[in-house]
Amino acid sequence: MEFHFEVLKTDPSGARLGRLTTPHGVVDTPAFMPVGTAGTVKGMTQEALEDLNVGLLLSNTYHLYLRPGHELIARMGGLHRFMSWRGGILTDSGGFQVFSLADLRKVSDEGVRFRSHLDGSEHFLTPEKAIEIQRALGSDIGMVLDECIECPASRERTQEASVRTVEWARRCKAAIDAGRPSEANPGQVFFGIVQGGAYQDLRRENAEKLVELDFPGYAIGGLAVGEPHEVSREIAAATAAHLPQDRPRYVMGVSKPEQLADYVRCGVDMMDCVLPTRNARNGYLYTRQGPLHIKNATYAQDSRPVDESCGCMVCRRYSRAYLSHLFRANEILGAILNTHHNLYFYLDMMRAIREAIALGGLSQFCSELQARLEAGRPE
Amino acid sequence: MEFHFEVLKTDPSGARLGRLTTPHGVVDTPAFMPVGTAGTVKGMTQEALEDLNVGLLLSNTYHLYLRPGHELIARMGGLHRFMSWRGGILTDSGGFQVFSLADLRKVSDEGVRFRSHLDGSEHFLTPEKAIEIQRALGSDIGMVLDECIECPASRERTQEASVRTVEWARRCKAAIDAGRPSEANPGQVFFGIVQGGAYQDLRRENAEKLVELDFPGYAIGGLAVGEPHEVSREIAAATAAHLPQDRPRYVMGVSKPEQLADYVRCGVDMMDCVLPTRNARNGYLYTRQGPLHIKNATYAQDSRPVDESCGCMVCRRYSRAYLSHLFRANEILGAILNTHHNLYFYLDMMRAIREAIALGGLSQFCSELQARLEAGRPE
Repeated sequence: MEFHFEVLKTDPSGARLGRLTTPHGVVDTPAFMPVGTAGTVKGMTQEALEDLNVGLLLSNTYHLYLRPGHELIARMGGLHRFMSWRGGILTDSGGFQVFSLADLRKVSDEGVRFRSHLDGSEHFLTPEKAIEIQRALGSDIGMVLDECIECPASRERTQEASVRTVEWARRCKAAIDAGRPSEANPGQVFFGIVQGGAYQDLRRENAEKLVELDFPGYAIGGLAVGEPHEVSREIAAATAAHLPQDRPRYVMGVSKPEQLADYVRCGVDMMDCVLPTRNARNGYLYTRQGPLHIKNATYAQDSRPVDESCGCMVCRRYSRAYLSHLFRANEILGAILNTHHNLYFYLDMMRAIREAIALGGLSQFCSELQARLEAGRPE
Repeated sequence: MEFHFEVLKTDPSGARLGRLTTPHGVVDTPAFMPVGTAGTVKGMTQEALEDLNVGLLLSNTYHLYLRPGHELIARMGGLHRFMSWRGGILTDSGGFQVFSLADLRKVSDEGVRFRSHLDGSEHFLTPEKAIEIQRALGSDIGMVLDECIECPASRERTQEASVRTVEWARRCKAAIDAGRPSEANPGQVFFGIVQGGAYQDLRRENAEKLVELDFPGYAIGGLAVGEPHEVSREIAAATAAHLPQDRPRYVMGVSKPEQLADYVRCGVDMMDCVLPTRNARNGYLYTRQGPLHIKNATYAQDSRPVDESCGCMVCRRYSRAYLSHLFRANEILGAILNTHHNLYFYLDMMRAIREAIALGGLSQFCSELQARLEAGRPE
């Protein structure tokens, strides 16, 4: 299968129902991608991800580059084969991870010099190198290298990063056009990433320049880096407006479950976020009535499932009391079951959002969601 | 279903093929019981245990008593319901765990005073209390409280512990007969435990006294506490010889996979051991050619499964290279997959042993196993 994207329906709210095809299958959009940082979604088997109908997951170039190394993965036949994952994989370029290293990095026009968080060894990531690594990994969708910065940031700093991001995208594009395709996955494509902080004119300028480079899809980067949700949503909407209708739009690193629909209404087709998996390991579970901290004493003797209206494997079988015990005893099964539930919750939310778009009622869906959340926290 | 045990066939080697019925199902014997210390087999979901056809698992009275507490579990409807486990559960009495606390305990004729390994709180475990806790848990098979000691130990010390073990078994029996059955599991039974260290005459005396008390099954305790395998096997055989033919015999805490058949040839019907699960978490994996340390550099680029002749879910899908990466990256999935493989290996070994008994060839099976292990380590 070749990379292909199709918008099937556009909602009055701006939301799009679509279908994304990669060399590893078809996914319905808007889609949520679970994060599998180091070639595994923490706490999940690949079998369990398949049971949850995960069609596309995200993995991290930065982490895989450092360990076990992209060359090793290439020798093992690429990331799909290495981790035995039949579905799609999107790899980020490492830009965000390097950004989050803070004191361990130094950015220049040439690239980013950084120290490994694992052993302190020094590395130099350039746009060309980011493409090379991702080709070795053989993901279905790779990302160009961008300079992701904090938000808020001064206009000057934001502009500098935006200009650099465009220049790096140009160099990535040249590397993509010049080099040999991924051996493991010749149908791999690369998305551009729009930066520009919270400045709508910079976002516009950045988007227009990237669109000139003609990528098969565009990410809206530099969100979920500290700004309020309102700002994030406005920026996502303003940026999406400057991106071509026929290409998938991906907001990186978002969001809380009740905010997913907000991004979808901005015309966003793809999202990824560590919240469901990371929160799960911290005992923070999602329910249709709001979050539940499994470590709270009140759940230690609660024989009900996490969410009585949830159809997941965990809620069908295990009680809050048992999950509470597993969490306190720091048992692996706690992480496994919590993660399964939270991912199911996110994916089910996305399924409901797609259904609402299909039925033409995403705005109503959002109002109902809001009302339900305001009505009650889980007891 | 009521507790019931039936010997279907006895092998010339002394091995028995049998069928054990508890209120939670029927298991073929000889049976291996995975260890689920704190109400969970570390790294396994209950669904995965069912997939592996686990019919009986072991859980620890000591751990559950301390956390989350037996009374809480009783209020939640017993251990089966608490952990959502439909199969059988055997609970040990806490004797072995208290033994392993070493400096944190003080044994008297009355019982054992010990400090919690979790918070240092002081507790007093008596034979009567051990029965009370296990009734609250509602396991299918409980164990009487015994005094487990190190091996080798002086004859004097061993005799003292043996006498105390018989006296405690008597008190347990009185408590069982006098008290109310488990509310969660009225069909619960309790096994006696034979002690006597490495002294065959003490073992015999101990066994005879316990048999007088008429338990529905007998454990051979005090093995796997430091003695060589040869000694362990001799003691198991010598002790089993003094136990009734029509009752199940359970050797506690054994063994390495290649030694399972040795115990079976002693006429043993049940075993439990932490090795497959604990070793898995340390990256020590079993294969038909001997153990494999997944952290060895040689496996980092090895695309073969852990054991090419293994039919488990892990070997059908994942490579040594991937498991090596997961182990190095300390990923939860590493523990999950390693545990699954090792448990499959043990359970499959037991299945092969039962098959060999059914076909009348356990001695031949043992010779072949030995030859295969001597022939080669995995590359």
